[in-house]
Amino acid sequence: MAQSSFFFCILALGFFFGASYAFDPRPLQDFCVADLNSTVRVNGLPCKDPATVTADDFFFRGFKSAGNTSNQYSSSVIPMNVARVPGLNTLGLGVARLDFLPGGYLPPHLHPRGTEILIVLEGRLEAGFVTSYPNYKHYSKILEKGDAFVIPVGLVHYFRNIADRDTVAFGVVNSQNAGISVVSNAIFGAKPAISSDYLSKAFQLDKKIVEELQSKF
Amino acid sequence: MAQSSFFFCILALGFFFGASYAFDPRPLQDFCVADLNSTVRVNGLPCKDPATVTADDFFFRGFKSAGNTSNQYSSSVIPMNVARVPGLNTLGLGVARLDFLPGGYLPPHLHPRGTEILIVLEGRLEAGFVTSYPNYKHYSKILEKGDAFVIPVGLVHYFRNIADRDTVAFGVVNSQNAGISVVSNAIFGAKPAISSDYLSKAFQLDKKIVEELQSKF
Amino acid sequence: MAQSSFFFCILALGFFFGASYAFDPRPLQDFCVADLNSTVRVNGLPCKDPATVTADDFFFRGFKSAGNTSNQYSSSVIPMNVARVPGLNTLGLGVARLDFLPGGYLPPHLHPRGTEILIVLEGRLEAGFVTSYPNYKHYSKILEKGDAFVIPVGLVHYFRNIADRDTVAFGVVNSQNAGISVVSNAIFGAKPAISSDYLSKAFQLDKKIVEELQSKF
Amino acid sequence: MAQSSFFFCILALGFFFGASYAFDPRPLQDFCVADLNSTVRVNGLPCKDPATVTADDFFFRGFKSAGNTSNQYSSSVIPMNVARVPGLNTLGLGVARLDFLPGGYLPPHLHPRGTEILIVLEGRLEAGFVTSYPNYKHYSKILEKGDAFVIPVGLVHYFRNIADRDTVAFGVVNSQNAGISVVSNAIFGAKPAISSDYLSKAFQLDKKIVEELQSKF
Amino acid sequence: MAQSSFFFCILALGFFFGASYAFDPRPLQDFCVADLNSTVRVNGLPCKDPATVTADDFFFRGFKSAGNTSNQYSSSVIPMNVARVPGLNTLGLGVARLDFLPGGYLPPHLHPRGTEILIVLEGRLEAGFVTSYPNYKHYSKILEKGDAFVIPVGLVHYFRNIADRDTVAFGVVNSQNAGISVVSNAIFGAKPAISSDYLSKAFQLDKKIVEELQSKF
Amino acid sequence: MAQSSFFFCILALGFFFGASYAFDPRPLQDFCVADLNSTVRVNGLPCKDPATVTADDFFFRGFKSAGNTSNQYSSSVIPMNVARVPGLNTLGLGVARLDFLPGGYLPPHLHPRGTEILIVLEGRLEAGFVTSYPNYKHYSKILEKGDAFVIPVGLVHYFRNIADRDTVAFGVVNSQNAGISVVSNAIFGAKPAISSDYLSKAFQLDKKIVEELQSKF
Repeated sequence: MAQSSFFFCILALGFFFGASYAFDPRPLQDFCVADLNSTVRVNGLPCKDPATVTADDFFFRGFKSAGNTSNQYSSSVIPMNVARVPGLNTLGLGVARLDFLPGGYLPPHLHPRGTEILIVLEGRLEAGFVTSYPNYKHYSKILEKGDAFVIPVGLVHYFRNIADRDTVAFGVVNSQNAGISVVSNAIFGAKPAISSDYLSKAFQLDKKIVEELQSKF
Repeated sequence: MAQSSFFFCILALGFFFGASYAFDPRPLQDFCVADLNSTVRVNGLPCKDPATVTADDFFFRGFKSAGNTSNQYSSSVIPMNVARVPGLNTLGLGVARLDFLPGGYLPPHLHPRGTEILIVLEGRLEAGFVTSYPNYKHYSKILEKGDAFVIPVGLVHYFRNIADRDTVAFGVVNSQNAGISVVSNAIFGAKPAISSDYLSKAFQLDKKIVEELQSKF
Repeated sequence: MAQSSFFFCILALGFFFGASYAFDPRPLQDFCVADLNSTVRVNGLPCKDPATVTADDFFFRGFKSAGNTSNQYSSSVIPMNVARVPGLNTLGLGVARLDFLPGGYLPPHLHPRGTEILIVLEGRLEAGFVTSYPNYKHYSKILEKGDAFVIPVGLVHYFRNIADRDTVAFGVVNSQNAGISVVSNAIFGAKPAISSDYLSKAFQLDKKIVEELQSKF
Repeated sequence: MAQSSFFFCILALGFFFGASYAFDPRPLQDFCVADLNSTVRVNGLPCKDPATVTADDFFFRGFKSAGNTSNQYSSSVIPMNVARVPGLNTLGLGVARLDFLPGGYLPPHLHPRGTEILIVLEGRLEAGFVTSYPNYKHYSKILEKGDAFVIPVGLVHYFRNIADRDTVAFGVVNSQNAGISVVSNAIFGAKPAISSDYLSKAFQLDKKIVEELQSKF
Repeated sequence: MAQSSFFFCILALGFFFGASYAFDPRPLQDFCVADLNSTVRVNGLPCKDPATVTADDFFFRGFKSAGNTSNQYSSSVIPMNVARVPGLNTLGLGVARLDFLPGGYLPPHLHPRGTEILIVLEGRLEAGFVTSYPNYKHYSKILEKGDAFVIPVGLVHYFRNIADRDTVAFGVVNSQNAGISVVSNAIFGAKPAISSDYLSKAFQLDKKIVEELQSKF
Repeated sequence: MAQSSFFFCILALGFFFGASYAFDPRPLQDFCVADLNSTVRVNGLPCKDPATVTADDFFFRGFKSAGNTSNQYSSSVIPMNVARVPGLNTLGLGVARLDFLPGGYLPPHLHPRGTEILIVLEGRLEAGFVTSYPNYKHYSKILEKGDAFVIPVGLVHYFRNIADRDTVAFGVVNSQNAGISVVSNAIFGAKPAISSDYLSKAFQLDKKIVEELQSKF
């Protein structure tokens, strides 16, 4: 539960963050700017009248400074996605600014619908991803200012600040809404809860520990 | 480490299982039967000479009986994928037979490149998936003989036998190689290991417990 | 005409069966559960409010027993598609249970928008497909319990029970609506009818025979 | 068998006609001109060295006059596809010139991997297609010079000259190799033959008639 | 500005020409005929009730004679696209008839969402395209009656009549709305105007010349 | 010609820059790291043996400082694409660092195979794109530190530094090789040259000016 405060800064910025990055179909017109007020729901979003589209629909002013890092992760994520920049609709691209205090990190997570490139602007970050069955091979690098790293779609990955100062990075994804599944939250924070008996067996953890985890996430 | 025995039955059956299901491009000919002996590597697999293709390339004889369930999960997975059925190459489809002893289960996992439908043939199974940030909503059903359940691409999901008898199911995916990422193995069984300091913080678990988990997966 | 009774059991189960399986775009959110009551029509189906989605939207209870096989084909098809399981919308996957009495069969047909894997659960089935111009090569296998066979998208194929008992199978397709075009019905049962003069020449059949066929399909 | 002479003119022009039109992936470079001599086989075709590409790779000189219409269909098809124009590789487009003598026609067929637009240049043509199960609705038009008609992917369709003079048309498809499956040939001309017992039942035709058809196609 | 009269004949024929050709998603039903009166906007167009679809929705009667060539280009373009033939929606294909008086031409342009095949029916045309950075290689051919030429998606290309008589051609694209960006108009005719200071530097042209160009396009 | 020095810094870094960004197919395995030494050519690039893949294949160290801006544009482009980071192969994503001296700019250009997001890190940039026929509507914004702007696939766009100091930005594209077509180079720098007579008419420019432009680009 406590973690829910973590992404508060993000939620405050945009309701749709859950639908933040990802894969996309091909556009069938120059643009299909999302009509965020439409009551019709489709794969992606319906478009507004092209006559009402302005340059602001393609514009985002939000990467200038860090988000709120006063949370258990000592980090923040500021997404630029279709919910905030309706011009991204149907175009298959998204970006987020990531900030990390010293000791800050993003927990292991994956994007169900997007490959990511991480670019470090300031500081020093460890970035790693793990391949799927049967090898679970772990590829990681220490990234400094000006370095970048690729994370293939759907693979579990993590970032952690290993500088003794703030670290700033951009994460870009090939989707208007790649989605984020933080593994600990998906497993221990699912609502309603997944059976603690089952998780205890699956993770080979004492049931009490599982239930404690379930109270935290 | 101990878990590595779990999928032994699968590995014994096919080296490529790691590349078992998933998304696919569209075929550009009636078929492009994989040439499993080619030294050329491409997205998917290169094709063999159409003149050498036979009906056996599209045929699989391996779902008649259960795989080896003598493992910690009391379950088995028999995949039909492009590594075993070369005719699947470029066609975007795969199947697996799943068997569960009483108490058997599959640990929380996800397919980086495929949506799944689970169909129960015998017994009684709980199947659930969890959506991504910010809701982590848990959708689950008890499936009996003849029931089926849909699991969207990239989402964490699980299956567990809740019958007091064997349960048999088919899992179908829209990929020739959807991939399987068992979350516990990706996190605690990554090779080389992910920093236990980091995992201890990210999962809010005592470092000793993390290291114990790392020794098990 | 007489054949129209054949698929009655299917029609009774779901109006949209014509749109039963097929190819799909990539999802742009965790799910886009079809709103079957919407008056808006799009490629696929519009989605309902995510807040109203329940596990039942991903669930299907209909494969437990055979459909009605009291028809000229002595067979039945029970589809699980987007019209019956709205959670399949945008996800590119579908399944059908096939039942065959002794002597039962499915007539030559094709799926305009889906590759298929056929899996035999009980009995003994001949399955075959034919490639396109110029070879029209016929690939077929006898499938017994636990066997499976792949049928590439858009190719004419057929199934017939060659056991002296009931045969049960699953057909899975990589589409929420692959479509079924039974060749005899498309040619001789088209409404309005295709010119019998033309069909007589094209099939090198006496015009009377063509007209008789047109009265049957 | 006799029909095999029909497409001789086509075969004489290009071995790969079977792979004539259809769906395609998206290009990942300006062009990937097919290397028709490569021994490597992939989905589509491998590319040749860009340094050896010339304008001739994108050029086709073959639509000036009719193909050989001295066959049972009194028609001819001249395809422009990836086998003849290697520059089409990965680009998802193809064209064919169709010629019909008075009384000429193309038998009912479908393209497994392509939507088609037919454009009439001279003469008068009936063009029709039939939707899939359950409606098998027949949409047709009489096309005169300058008229065009759309045929959705995978649906059975036909063309017949209804002028008392020659008719000329172009068929364009959105694939480098859409494929052609002439229904009569796929059913009655499959090699090896489909069981005549089965076809007799499926088409409700006397077995003798089926076998006669099998000797013709 | 003067050029705006050029495409008048086109505009008179169809408001949506800007959305004339292009890439497409895969259809999820036999057809999704565009409802041109719908107020809902999506990627592509929403569909109308299938029960109201007729053969006319797939039919186009407009290629019989040339468009109006009384303009500065001495050429005309008659498009067949989703705005005029609603049956094209979701199907990924389009065609245009091109006519050129002696000396007529189409200015350098590109299709943002479609590969093109040009087919010459009468006359003699030079067709050329230019690859992207760093080579800007120019591939061109003289096309006579019956010749065709391929132009890969997104590349700048041009056509000019080099016969001393009228030239007629078809341009086919793999999109229901490939789009047309005439380079001179996009650069010098943008509304509002692009800074003439900037264009003067970028094109190494005297600012007066740039402003003159801006008054013409 | 003079411009060829402009991109020298880029060329020096990677031969394949011409294939720098763009659209992509979907991956069929966790990764298909490009084998840059392979003699086999396919859509995208063939993959190397997964056993030889290391974290360096996903890593790029080149964004720390500006490229060489001593050219006529007073700007530089440092691409991170599949030619430099082989791990990007099949994954559909790319990035470039852009640097501009005061007065620096990128000339009008387009990406044939990719949508772009531009993110400004330092300075002040004007960014604009122009829609296609018939509107040629110009959307532009002044971007300061922390601002971003979306440019839909295939549309002509430009960037120019309007600060009196250096401006730094990242351009991200949803392709491993989106391609860059600088309009002035494609038109006036095509090799061999496009007819100056034709260009003179098409651009309504004196032939001498066209030939001068042809000598510059």
